[in-house]
Amino acid sequence: MAQQLADLRDMEFALFEQFKIDELANHELFADFNKKTIKMIISEARQLAIKELLPTNKPGDEEGCTFESGVVKVPECFHRIYELYCEGEWLAMADDPEVGGGGMPHTVYLAANELFQAANLSFVLYSGLTHGAAKLVETFGTEEQKKTYLKNMLSGKWAGTMLLTEPEAGSDVGALTTVAKKNDDGTYSISGNKIFISGGEHNMTENIIHPVLARIEGAPEGTKGISLFLVPKYRVNEDGSLGEFNDVVCTGIEEKMGLHGNVTASLTLGAKGNCVGTLLGAENKGMSAMFVMMNEERQLVGQQGFSLATAAYISALNYARERIQSAYILKPKDGGVPIIQHPDVRRQLIIMKSYVDALRSLIYFSGTVFDRIKTSDDDQEKYHLERTLEILTPIIKGYITDKTLEVCSHAVQIYGGYGYTKEYPVEQYMRDSRILMIYEGTNGIQALDLFMRKLRMDEGKPFMDFLGRIQKTIDESKGNPVVQNLVPNLQDTLNQYQEVIATLAKAASSDKVLEAVSQATPLLEITGDLVSAWMLLWRANVAAKALEENPKKKDIEFYNGQIKTAEFFISSVLPVTMGKMNSVIAMNPAIVEISEAGFGGL
Amino acid sequence: MAQQLADLRDMEFALFEQFKIDELANHELFADFNKKTIKMIISEARQLAIKELLPTNKPGDEEGCTFESGVVKVPECFHRIYELYCEGEWLAMADDPEVGGGGMPHTVYLAANELFQAANLSFVLYSGLTHGAAKLVETFGTEEQKKTYLKNMLSGKWAGTMLLTEPEAGSDVGALTTVAKKNDDGTYSISGNKIFISGGEHNMTENIIHPVLARIEGAPEGTKGISLFLVPKYRVNEDGSLGEFNDVVCTGIEEKMGLHGNVTASLTLGAKGNCVGTLLGAENKGMSAMFVMMNEERQLVGQQGFSLATAAYISALNYARERIQSAYILKPKDGGVPIIQHPDVRRQLIIMKSYVDALRSLIYFSGTVFDRIKTSDDDQEKYHLERTLEILTPIIKGYITDKTLEVCSHAVQIYGGYGYTKEYPVEQYMRDSRILMIYEGTNGIQALDLFMRKLRMDEGKPFMDFLGRIQKTIDESKGNPVVQNLVPNLQDTLNQYQEVIATLAKAASSDKVLEAVSQATPLLEITGDLVSAWMLLWRANVAAKALEENPKKKDIEFYNGQIKTAEFFISSVLPVTMGKMNSVIAMNPAIVEISEAGFGGL
Repeated sequence: MAQQLADLRDMEFALFEQFKIDELANHELFADFNKKTIKMIISEARQLAIKELLPTNKPGDEEGCTFESGVVKVPECFHRIYELYCEGEWLAMADDPEVGGGGMPHTVYLAANELFQAANLSFVLYSGLTHGAAKLVETFGTEEQKKTYLKNMLSGKWAGTMLLTEPEAGSDVGALTTVAKKNDDGTYSISGNKIFISGGEHNMTENIIHPVLARIEGAPEGTKGISLFLVPKYRVNEDGSLGEFNDVVCTGIEEKMGLHGNVTASLTLGAKGNCVGTLLGAENKGMSAMFVMMNEERQLVGQQGFSLATAAYISALNYARERIQSAYILKPKDGGVPIIQHPDVRRQLIIMKSYVDALRSLIYFSGTVFDRIKTSDDDQEKYHLERTLEILTPIIKGYITDKTLEVCSHAVQIYGGYGYTKEYPVEQYMRDSRILMIYEGTNGIQALDLFMRKLRMDEGKPFMDFLGRIQKTIDESKGNPVVQNLVPNLQDTLNQYQEVIATLAKAASSDKVLEAVSQATPLLEITGDLVSAWMLLWRANVAAKALEENPKKKDIEFYNGQIKTAEFFISSVLPVTMGKMNSVIAMNPAIVEISEAGFGGL
Repeated sequence: MAQQLADLRDMEFALFEQFKIDELANHELFADFNKKTIKMIISEARQLAIKELLPTNKPGDEEGCTFESGVVKVPECFHRIYELYCEGEWLAMADDPEVGGGGMPHTVYLAANELFQAANLSFVLYSGLTHGAAKLVETFGTEEQKKTYLKNMLSGKWAGTMLLTEPEAGSDVGALTTVAKKNDDGTYSISGNKIFISGGEHNMTENIIHPVLARIEGAPEGTKGISLFLVPKYRVNEDGSLGEFNDVVCTGIEEKMGLHGNVTASLTLGAKGNCVGTLLGAENKGMSAMFVMMNEERQLVGQQGFSLATAAYISALNYARERIQSAYILKPKDGGVPIIQHPDVRRQLIIMKSYVDALRSLIYFSGTVFDRIKTSDDDQEKYHLERTLEILTPIIKGYITDKTLEVCSHAVQIYGGYGYTKEYPVEQYMRDSRILMIYEGTNGIQALDLFMRKLRMDEGKPFMDFLGRIQKTIDESKGNPVVQNLVPNLQDTLNQYQEVIATLAKAASSDKVLEAVSQATPLLEITGDLVSAWMLLWRANVAAKALEENPKKKDIEFYNGQIKTAEFFISSVLPVTMGKMNSVIAMNPAIVEISEAGFGGL
């Protein structure tokens, strides 16, 4: 039977066959989570996603959020599903049981969340932000702060957000002007204007806890003078009950291209001089603290993109199997056939599939790294894993969300005219996806992060280790008769990639720094292509071995599909990647040299 | 001062310096249209576009079209601008004066229409369709039909449409089931259901004339049995006044991702047995007749895309010059600078500019071909020009609209979070643009048209001539010291392109036909890249020569901008095109070989 949202067989393939996450149960931390339990958890998540969240996706888009007399309302149908979501204790499923979490492996959370986000991204974003904010409290909070906020946030009783952006401080966070003035009791009076705050104000929870970036009076300019504060919408009394309104006023919400069910608020703090916050972490260390959340959020954004991509792929695939249109090209006199038989539709489907498969693996891989950091007691290994996660972050955020738009656009195309209408879900996926390339650091910022920081951190050693991991998969594939023909293309790509980063590194430390930096986005794209090919070869390798074990007929189809997908990507996409690498190496300076007036329009 | 919609300097560069369209005035047909007159016409169009059409674009998107009790209303603000547009006699500005047209060169119409469409695409689409329908009447109509309809359509008093699609007949027009039954008086009673009819019903004109594809009772199946009929919404009395309602009932309108101001109607013809049409052209020759309109409409769709692309580029460029954010990378301690100084923003702007410049030239070039067909009295030349136009059609429709989405998406990205909001125009451009890849034949259909028909028509001779035209520009550039360094890359690309089409042609006539057909879309993309590079080299060549003439300072900036843009595209984009060509030549069969089940999701 046709599936919805995501291919369960593929999820299980990646989880258990590629990454063997059930082996995590060998560690006491995850001893409760054997394969059967993990399958059950995912099955429950799938039920909730398909039966409850999915039916609210379109109504949520149509109704959107409203702002009247200072009150923000989420789509009416969100209230019920929020209750179900909180009752199921999904929000903190992978958090430490000590703080009220479910203690599951992060990778399992990623799989469950994939289904939730694919079903209704606008909705799940509220709890995603709450989780990130709670993580900040857990990591930097005093005992008092944790006692006051943490449990209620992780249960979903209170929501959380992230207040960074101001009208003149977007990508340049250091330009912010929100001020914190120390009070005699050690609290701070906060005043300023924040914009583009996802979930910044709504009627789904009784309180909203805002981590806020602000500058303490007299602190240095720029990012060095920024501190992090915890600012609740309603103050919390000693006994945990809600106190007075904390002067956090919503002044408006954005009308957007998509993601209509998730409010984007403008907030004014302390207009009446009555907004009080407490310092979270150390003075002037707000940026680095916020980056704890930011990295989680950036990975989450990549995962949001992937979730829309898988939903779009499955929708288009089901449609292509059902929609009858035009004769098969080799039998032009016969009647119409399902459009999945037409080469151009198949081309689009295999492009989509190759990204969806590769990116699912990339995300689960990051999950296993996350989990292994927790289970490892070897400092060297921990260090290595943490660096790997840092390298993966801009790729997950930037590359995945770029590809998401592509995949969603292909889905619209496969539906033809219907795809442009609101009768089918794909146009919404495309609209919803477009913000993902922007928020939590534009993809241009991700590219700079990869190039300027991740490539060279710790003298480039972790990045070389990362490439070594790719080489390992290539080497493992060499002996396999089914996949070894894919090895030369990927090996060439990896070799040329080393050339690319050497060229860029050399330029960056010369007077060609602008030329080098102007190649950051192509570099991110190339890196993503390389990582995708790596994941697909890895998958094909696993599939080829499984085929030797005499699997069931249905599984034979599945495994062969894996091998064909890898073959497509490595043989048909990597040559284009090679072209992109040649372009980067040529490093034409026109981007830098064209004068401002030369862009025209004056 | 910052411009809007399109760069007037660049329009004039392409019109007068690259294509010398004022030379058309040497022919008696266009004797009235010297440079000064053409400039005046464009200036007037620009006034109307900026002052009247542009302010209605956002309101039109927000209000959309409504359907209540069978009545379709366009956005209220469209009525006034429609009057102005008709008063200005823009609809038929380039048509034969004999039928009420303005007799201007087609290229001038393209330039004016670029401004109108950039200002409000939803609005201009109504008259674009009317024009296409009128062209059908002019070409295939009897004297009676012309007398009844033509003048009122070309003046805009009555609107026109195009009724092809049915629920089960989209790309496969031959599957349509609308029936025409001959009456004793020679008219036909029509009955059937049509969907996705742009401008199919509205309250902007007193009558709407529908060219309808239908099958005469007993006619053969498939496209061979399709005839074309003229079906008015209201019948027309002998004296030209409106008669009774012709049983063309709107049953609903689509809710769409964008293009909200242009209605997409479902129409039921003859539900009460009272819908009468007249045959337009010959029995069973409806498809070829419709293709007269279709080719015009396909070129128009490409131009629609281009118009959104230029509007998006100019918007993003203006924003990038104004928006202050982050320090210049070489002066990190200084304050924020306009974001046009940041390499990643420049990279996006130059990508956008290279497409906008190249595609403007491509469209005007097609216009000059169109005009030269009219002025030529050499049959051999006419034949050659007509074939060129046929070759250009799928490139203009398919490649331009693909690139439009890319350009619009870059514009959203440059605006950052603001780009996703309805406060700025770019998210609408992106939403509006997405249908262009679908309607009037999906871009997959365009790719097949290029590969299966245009490459091989008349034994491939016209296509070889077309490539010869590109070679000519390359050869002309060889002697120019400023641009000759761009020659090798483009020459290599052109040579490899020949290899690509030879490989594909060989495969298509072997048992690899499916593999070959699965490369049709990459081929279209490669062809578009090649044509873009050609246009940009041509431009750079003209600019380099102009620089020798000691131009004004502002023009020096402009011409240098042309050269840098060509340099960027040819040095940084063509290497990627080379990669795409290598991919096509490798022609991996995975697209064909993967089983239907192998796509997963079952």
